[in-house]
Amino acid sequence: MKIGILGGGQLGRMLLQASINYPVTTYVLENDVECPAAHLCHHFTKGNIQDFDTVYQFGKGLDAITIEIESVNIEALILLEREGVRIYPSTSALSIIKNKVLQKQFYQDNNFPTASFVITESRDELNAYEHLFPAIHKVGEGGYDGKGVKKIANKQDIVHGFDAPAVLEEKIAIVKELAVIIGVSQNMKVVAYPPVEMVFDSRYHLLDFQLCPAQVSDEIISKSQQIAREVVKKLNSPGIFAVELFINHEGELLINEMAPRAHNSGHHTIEASFCSQFDMLWRIMLGLPLGNTALIMPSVLINLVGEPKETGTVKYEGLPNVLSISNAFVHLYGKKETKPGRKMGHVTLLHTDIAGLQSQAEAVKSILKIKAVRTAN
Amino acid sequence: MKIGILGGGQLGRMLLQASINYPVTTYVLENDVECPAAHLCHHFTKGNIQDFDTVYQFGKGLDAITIEIESVNIEALILLEREGVRIYPSTSALSIIKNKVLQKQFYQDNNFPTASFVITESRDELNAYEHLFPAIHKVGEGGYDGKGVKKIANKQDIVHGFDAPAVLEEKIAIVKELAVIIGVSQNMKVVAYPPVEMVFDSRYHLLDFQLCPAQVSDEIISKSQQIAREVVKKLNSPGIFAVELFINHEGELLINEMAPRAHNSGHHTIEASFCSQFDMLWRIMLGLPLGNTALIMPSVLINLVGEPKETGTVKYEGLPNVLSISNAFVHLYGKKETKPGRKMGHVTLLHTDIAGLQSQAEAVKSILKIKAVRTAN
Repeated sequence: MKIGILGGGQLGRMLLQASINYPVTTYVLENDVECPAAHLCHHFTKGNIQDFDTVYQFGKGLDAITIEIESVNIEALILLEREGVRIYPSTSALSIIKNKVLQKQFYQDNNFPTASFVITESRDELNAYEHLFPAIHKVGEGGYDGKGVKKIANKQDIVHGFDAPAVLEEKIAIVKELAVIIGVSQNMKVVAYPPVEMVFDSRYHLLDFQLCPAQVSDEIISKSQQIAREVVKKLNSPGIFAVELFINHEGELLINEMAPRAHNSGHHTIEASFCSQFDMLWRIMLGLPLGNTALIMPSVLINLVGEPKETGTVKYEGLPNVLSISNAFVHLYGKKETKPGRKMGHVTLLHTDIAGLQSQAEAVKSILKIKAVRTAN
Repeated sequence: MKIGILGGGQLGRMLLQASINYPVTTYVLENDVECPAAHLCHHFTKGNIQDFDTVYQFGKGLDAITIEIESVNIEALILLEREGVRIYPSTSALSIIKNKVLQKQFYQDNNFPTASFVITESRDELNAYEHLFPAIHKVGEGGYDGKGVKKIANKQDIVHGFDAPAVLEEKIAIVKELAVIIGVSQNMKVVAYPPVEMVFDSRYHLLDFQLCPAQVSDEIISKSQQIAREVVKKLNSPGIFAVELFINHEGELLINEMAPRAHNSGHHTIEASFCSQFDMLWRIMLGLPLGNTALIMPSVLINLVGEPKETGTVKYEGLPNVLSISNAFVHLYGKKETKPGRKMGHVTLLHTDIAGLQSQAEAVKSILKIKAVRTAN
C-alpha cells in the first residue's frame, strides 16, 4: 500500500517510526527538505501542503493520505477522496475540526458538553460582549500551538482579539484538563485510550507535562472516554483523534477541543501502551485489526520546548543526565534550530509509582534544557 | 554526528528505527536499493560492503561506522579507523569474530569455556579426525544463518565438510542454549542484558523462539552474564555484542559463538527492556550514557521465516489474527520476496505469565505463515 503524509514535523517522524513494523510504502509532502520526517520515508516531495495542485498531484496514485497538521489544502483532499483515495481523517471530519467556529457549533448542534460561546466575525464585535469577559477568543482558522488563542480579560484586551471569524468562549475555572486518544477503524470500530491528565506551560500554551492514567475517579475516567468516543463517532470518520476535556468546579466534563490526528497528548503511548497512537493509525489505514490501548505501566510525559530567549542551532543541556535515568525514554525530534517555545522533543517516564513519577517529571524539567549554541562573533 | 551503517537489512532497519530518537545524521551502504533500511536514513549509497574502495569512500568524512553483518571489507575499516573514524566494533574485535577459526582460538587462548575443537585447513583433513565424529564443522569465513555449519556424523558426511579453513568442534549434548547481549561504552563500561533462552528450528538453523528471562537458576543467569561480560571485555572494543552459550548435561556453560553487533537474540529488547539493543548502540556511538538493560516484562520472541517451498512475492498469512493478540508486537522487515527460511519479521509477546507466553508463542507460530503469492500463469 502507498500511503502519504501531509506535513513532515515530529508527528510525521513518529508516525514513520511506527510504519517500520509494517509493509507499507510511505510518501511525505513538506516544504522543508530538512524537516524531522524527510529522511524517513520512501518518497519525499518538497511542496506546500496548502497548495491545491501540489496536494492533488502528491495524492494522485496513492491509496491513502493522512495529515500531521490541520492546515492543509482540503479542496484537493476532497477531490482525491472523490477519486477513491482514502483520507484519514475524512475531509468532512477535517473540515469541522480545522475550523474552531465549526468545531464549536458541531458540539452545540450535537448536544456535547462544552463551554458556552458566541461567534464573532470581526474584532469590533467583541465590544458587544463585554458582559462575557473575562473570556477566551479563539480564531476559526490557522491557530496552532496556542497562537490562535487570546485571553480577553477586559475591554482593554479587545485590541488583542482576532479580526476574523472566531469563537468567544466563557473562561472556565478549570480543575483539571484531560485528553483521550480515540482510534476508529475503517469499519467504524472505536477504541479509547486511558485519559491523560495535562498541565500546560502558562508561558507558551504548550502542553509540557502529562500523567497517565489521569488521577481522577473511575467515574470521570469512564465518562471522559464515553464522551470522547461519542463525539468522535459523530464525525463518522476513521482515523486517530484526540479529545481534550476540562473538568470544572462542578465536576462536569466539558469538551475543549479535538484534533483529527495523532496528538502530543498521546506521545506517551509509544512506550506506555501496548499499541501506540502511531501504530494504531497504521493499523487503521492498512485495514488491520485495532490494537490494544491498555497501559503497560503508568507514565509521565515532559515536553522539551525551546527555552525563552534561546534562538539558533540547538544544544541539549543536561541530556546525559536524563539519559542516565533508568526509566526515562528520550525522544528528540531532530530539529536543527531552536526558538522559544518550539517543540524539540519529549521525555516519557514509566513507573508503577505515580507520585514518584511526578517528582521525576519535575526533575527532568529542571535538568534538561533546550538552548541555542552561542557562537563567537 | 554522521554515522554510517554497512549493510541495509533488518538489523539496519531496526537500528535506524531507534536512531529516530536521537539527533544524528545516518548513512547506509548496501548494494540492494530496495533493502529494508534503504529509505530510513539521511544518505543511502548503493555499493558493495565487501569492496575496499567502496567502503573507504563511504566511510571518509563520517564520524563513526557500525556494521549489521560481519562480511564487510575489514581492510577499508582498518584504514578508516587509523584515520580517525570510530568503528563499532573495533576492527581488531571484528577480525577475531568474523573468522570462526580465530574466534575459537580466542576463547581457547583466553581460557573461556567452549566446546573442544581442532582446526582443519581442507576437507581432506577431516579423514584424520574420524575418532571425533559426530562433530560440527564450521567454516572460518563467510558462514551466515547456518550456511557455514555442517554436521559430520560419520565418514560418509566428510563430503559435506568445508574445503577451506574451518573448525571441527565436538558435538555437545545441549540441555539449553542461552544468549546474552552486552553493551560496551566508549570508555569501556560494560552492561549485560538478562539472558534469553533460545530454541532453534532444526530445518533452517534459524533461531525461531526465544524466552526472556531464561528459565534457569539464578546462578546460571549470573554466571552466563559474567562469562559474556568477560569475553567481550577481552575484545577491548565498544559496541553491542551477542554471546551465545550452551548449557551441557553437567550444567556447565560453554561459549558457542559471538556476534559483534545487534543480534536476533536481542530483538525482544525493543519492547521488553527499558533500553533496546539498538537504542544502546546509539547511546554508545553518540557518547551518551549506557541505558537500562532491565526487563519491563518477560517476553517471548518468534521469528517469522519464509515457509518451505514458498518463493516469490511475500504474503503474510494470518497477520490480522496475530495483530489481534492484545500483547503481541509485530515487526515485518519489508522484504518484498520470501524464500524458504528467509528472516521476514518477528513477533514479540509480553506478559508476566511465562508459561502462558510459551503457549502463546506456539499459537503465533501456527497462525502466522510467511508464504508467496501464487500468480496465475
